[in-house]
Amino acid sequence: MSVLVVGSMAIDSVETPFGKREDALGGSATYFSTAASLLTDVRLVAVIGGDFPEKHVDSLKTRAIDLSGLERIPNGKTFFWAGKYGANLNEAQTLDTQLNVFADFHPKLPEHYRDTDFVFLANIHPRLQLEVLEQVKKPKLVALDTMNLWINIERPALLDVLKRVDLLMINEGEARLLSGEHNIVKAARAIRAMGPKILVIKRGEYGALYFDAESVFFAPAYPLESVFDPTGAGDTFAGGVMGYLSRTGKTDRGTFQQAIVMGCVLGSFTVEEFSNDRLLRATKSEVQERFARFRELTHFQELTDLT
Amino acid sequence: MSVLVVGSMAIDSVETPFGKREDALGGSATYFSTAASLLTDVRLVAVIGGDFPEKHVDSLKTRAIDLSGLERIPNGKTFFWAGKYGANLNEAQTLDTQLNVFADFHPKLPEHYRDTDFVFLANIHPRLQLEVLEQVKKPKLVALDTMNLWINIERPALLDVLKRVDLLMINEGEARLLSGEHNIVKAARAIRAMGPKILVIKRGEYGALYFDAESVFFAPAYPLESVFDPTGAGDTFAGGVMGYLSRTGKTDRGTFQQAIVMGCVLGSFTVEEFSNDRLLRATKSEVQERFARFRELTHFQELTDLT
Repeated sequence: MSVLVVGSMAIDSVETPFGKREDALGGSATYFSTAASLLTDVRLVAVIGGDFPEKHVDSLKTRAIDLSGLERIPNGKTFFWAGKYGANLNEAQTLDTQLNVFADFHPKLPEHYRDTDFVFLANIHPRLQLEVLEQVKKPKLVALDTMNLWINIERPALLDVLKRVDLLMINEGEARLLSGEHNIVKAARAIRAMGPKILVIKRGEYGALYFDAESVFFAPAYPLESVFDPTGAGDTFAGGVMGYLSRTGKTDRGTFQQAIVMGCVLGSFTVEEFSNDRLLRATKSEVQERFARFRELTHFQELTDLT
Repeated sequence: MSVLVVGSMAIDSVETPFGKREDALGGSATYFSTAASLLTDVRLVAVIGGDFPEKHVDSLKTRAIDLSGLERIPNGKTFFWAGKYGANLNEAQTLDTQLNVFADFHPKLPEHYRDTDFVFLANIHPRLQLEVLEQVKKPKLVALDTMNLWINIERPALLDVLKRVDLLMINEGEARLLSGEHNIVKAARAIRAMGPKILVIKRGEYGALYFDAESVFFAPAYPLESVFDPTGAGDTFAGGVMGYLSRTGKTDRGTFQQAIVMGCVLGSFTVEEFSNDRLLRATKSEVQERFARFRELTHFQELTDLT
């Protein structure tokens, strides 16, 4: 099967305690598709300007990523983001955001994208997310990301989209803002009542939680010595989750659990270097090996009878 | 086997967003021994004043807790702590601390305590921790807790104790302060070089990490809807860990992993009500059942070949 992603491609300027990178390849669709293409065929919809370096497009062409939905505006400028991380690497301070060609973006799906089974709506305006949903036929699973901005200023449109998606993947702060609940279990119940049957809450270096109607599942982030730049970890995670679901064609709980772990595994590559550099080099056997390390990290023996 | 705990017994005044409790039974030795006594025989060393309610002593007498090391100072006042939690329940604001009889405390081990196999030195002055080590014979495993105060003002004495313990259990902020490293893997390596072969880092609602020479293990906190009062969760965790090790008599990695999970399981009871109320009522079969839920929460299937 294949997965469709609609999101941003960007030029990033990133500073961390360990270094600085200008003109880095960034954007949600970039990280998502780099991750998912390790596992399945990806169909990408995004927009770039005439300034977008051809080498970045070329790097994505080496993967199983269909770029026919990549729109180029020759006389426009690509979406630009500049951010800086402090010592704790938890949250970036945004120094500059220039929407540029992204300001007038309306996603247009090539005809052959319309029957994609797995659809990921990355963090864009909820009305654009709705426009995508109007263009797809009968997806097996639709997943959504969003952010504080849309929760605050476009709540009605966001609630419309939420009614139409199966899976929401947001971070802990967003879940609290969206639900108005601090307790994460209560927040999950409130959000699932808004539409998505499944909620995944991303907790950065503390991992991710999965909630469905009957169960909870938790996957940690791998404790790494070499966290270098967390930019893109969340979209990489989403790419791992959706890529794995698409690869298997299944959406049962057991597959979802593996998919969440796969998201954490691929995220652990992204944060090791700037941009998608490390993730682009990750091989299937490295992924397999790290997945096995996650099992060692979390699995333990049953208890013999206490009573 | 049995476990020895040297720590505090206290009267707490606690306020959370959900209510207020005066004259609550508190203190590290209280939580530790309530937890550990579900699993093994406990020997307690602590000091209380003449004001200490007899009903609190009686509640501990119902457990497998040897109280012959509990010193009473009839004309003294018990250690008192008052604290308040905000909406996020992560960290208490200390409103008042009165050391009282704890100020002149010197732990004296009854003769029959001296050959205890598992020893837990709760968070007290590192020099008192050393005094305990002078009194025990050949323990199989010595574990230690400490706090920011001692890391800051009694570092040399603390480093002396660290050279003599097998296991250190501290929270994430303390690990960073002690090591001077923000990255948790680097912090763990630096701290293990100070003495303890094994380090457990407590992350509150995000669970706990175990580090030994070759491996890392992670256990989450159970996502609970009813976190009511987090006071004592860390000492309960330690009681679960040490109680389980003592029960099995083993210290291999697999047993340690189960012990860490047991710590998280028992901690999940403590936070559901004020003081050790809920933990005191927890039955072995409830513990067994919650342990099984932790396996469901974290376990997932192996990956079929990706390549």
